[in-house]
Amino acid sequence: MRIDEIDTPFVAIDMDVVENNIRKTQQYYNEHGIGFRPHIKTHKLPVIAHKQVAAGATGVTCQKLGEAEVMAAAGIEDIFIAYNIIGEAKVDRLLRLTRQVTMSVAADSEYTVRGISGAAAREGCDVRVVVEMDTGGKRAGVQSPAEAVALARLIDSLPGVTFWGLMTYPTRPDTAPVFEETVRLLKQDGLEAKVVSGGGSSCRFRVHETPVITEHRAGTYLYNDRNMVASGTATWEDCAMRIVATVVSRPTADRAIIDGGSKTFTNDQSREGGFGYFPDYPKAVTYSQSEEHGHVDLSQCDRKPEIGERVQVIVNHACGTTNLHNEVVAHRGGRVEAIWPVAARGLLR
Amino acid sequence: MRIDEIDTPFVAIDMDVVENNIRKTQQYYNEHGIGFRPHIKTHKLPVIAHKQVAAGATGVTCQKLGEAEVMAAAGIEDIFIAYNIIGEAKVDRLLRLTRQVTMSVAADSEYTVRGISGAAAREGCDVRVVVEMDTGGKRAGVQSPAEAVALARLIDSLPGVTFWGLMTYPTRPDTAPVFEETVRLLKQDGLEAKVVSGGGSSCRFRVHETPVITEHRAGTYLYNDRNMVASGTATWEDCAMRIVATVVSRPTADRAIIDGGSKTFTNDQSREGGFGYFPDYPKAVTYSQSEEHGHVDLSQCDRKPEIGERVQVIVNHACGTTNLHNEVVAHRGGRVEAIWPVAARGLLR
Repeated sequence: MRIDEIDTPFVAIDMDVVENNIRKTQQYYNEHGIGFRPHIKTHKLPVIAHKQVAAGATGVTCQKLGEAEVMAAAGIEDIFIAYNIIGEAKVDRLLRLTRQVTMSVAADSEYTVRGISGAAAREGCDVRVVVEMDTGGKRAGVQSPAEAVALARLIDSLPGVTFWGLMTYPTRPDTAPVFEETVRLLKQDGLEAKVVSGGGSSCRFRVHETPVITEHRAGTYLYNDRNMVASGTATWEDCAMRIVATVVSRPTADRAIIDGGSKTFTNDQSREGGFGYFPDYPKAVTYSQSEEHGHVDLSQCDRKPEIGERVQVIVNHACGTTNLHNEVVAHRGGRVEAIWPVAARGLLR
Repeated sequence: MRIDEIDTPFVAIDMDVVENNIRKTQQYYNEHGIGFRPHIKTHKLPVIAHKQVAAGATGVTCQKLGEAEVMAAAGIEDIFIAYNIIGEAKVDRLLRLTRQVTMSVAADSEYTVRGISGAAAREGCDVRVVVEMDTGGKRAGVQSPAEAVALARLIDSLPGVTFWGLMTYPTRPDTAPVFEETVRLLKQDGLEAKVVSGGGSSCRFRVHETPVITEHRAGTYLYNDRNMVASGTATWEDCAMRIVATVVSRPTADRAIIDGGSKTFTNDQSREGGFGYFPDYPKAVTYSQSEEHGHVDLSQCDRKPEIGERVQVIVNHACGTTNLHNEVVAHRGGRVEAIWPVAARGLLR
């Protein structure tokens, strides 16, 4: 079966491109002796996680317990949850995971750490806790090296938890001095960060410039998307994910309507404007979206797609798109290799 | 069980508010003798569609065949698909639906109409076709009354299809004269529009001002959301949908991180800025989102939520949010009444 025979809209994943992205990225980390722990948020597929690990990844990164549960049940053996796990129900799930696989988890507060420690001590578990630092991303994370060290000390003093290292997202120019100062202060206290973890896809080939980092996390590099191309660190040829859509209306000479809108592409923005890039119609612009319609301006196109024609679209943001779709179609050169349920989609807890 | 016992994040639906929204809206249409055909895109739940029909709705509106298939299989008997159905595979599914329930479908081109007619004639079916008109929304739809009449004439002349009327989305100030002129021209040709259908939630109580319209379609009115409140046609009390989230980090005095981001709330925008409204912290602003983190600015709040605290959020756009979630929690006054799988989510074909 070829992808041309599958009804639209659907997500097509070019497995040759995926495997090339895995290989090229892992090779960089191997060459530089840096650990690589890909984030599964982009694909949410056990089969791809296994390919990443087989290529040499240290393990995987998940953002939610539900994702980690899917990966553990699929045989992935080393998982880092880059998220504060809060509340009894979630901590209990974390402890179950700790019994199954090598687990580590982020924390940025005494509240999170004490919640995990208390339950882990009662259950006779030990959880590796990585201190999350805000190094300019203005998201979660402790605000200074001193705060990080204080939290590391607390972890070190509590039962059921082991201080394991530091993480941030994303790695930024300000990250290096913050991590370096923190590692120095930790050493003074006799504490060792076994892992110093940065994150982000667009910086994935520049991690060696920050020697304090021992491990990197990236997700989007796997499929790539319009925002990755805009960042200058991927080409259109590196983009493994495309939405295949059909032109369902050509109401005017300059307008096409395709059978996917915000529920197919997300409303995730691109600095380039519009929603997605049409490789066969590079000047076509999706100027707006309804939920199930993409409204495409063809006025700058020399050649224009006809009604009934199938078009391919490289999305603004691959990870958000994955999360909308129940399944993806994996192919090589257009020949269908598999139709995979997106096993870890919609698992928000 | 109370909603306080369900782990976050999740979608909570207040059924008292839902039923009030259904009743109040249907009452308006009854009083004015206008048909009302709610759009199921907002809830994607058979049980709610049945409540809408039981209250007096003419039938329901779906946007995709997959949604219509779920509704037909759940016993909904009158369905309009407000979408051009293109391609053999989809037309075949449309004909199957036509055998099960009273079906009508939109079309804005000869291409769509001939595709349906050819297959329907071969299969001995007859499909009601409603001509979609662009009355200023710049989406799908024929561009003028003359084009609408030409397409209606074509439908009237072909086997397997019956000209059924006109539709547009959204109803705008420009809509009335376009519909009126089209109906006049149709009459001159001996053609009758059995339905003249407008759409939109924010205009749902002003449809009587456009007497040419015989039926209205609206979806968001059911749950309401931040954008509906901004439109001035719903209050916060009319908002039945809330995301219940937990504060998982308080990295600074003025910042909270909640356990839902773009994969919980969508990146659908609001004219008010930010992502969602916190009824208990009205001055809190979600200034940005990662995929699983909401980044909330508390600097304007008198009182601030603590780490571990549960917060409720009224989303920017209810329909997009429904589409992200595998299930919703229906409750009355906080007591859980049902946890429903969102049966028609992710059905993009």
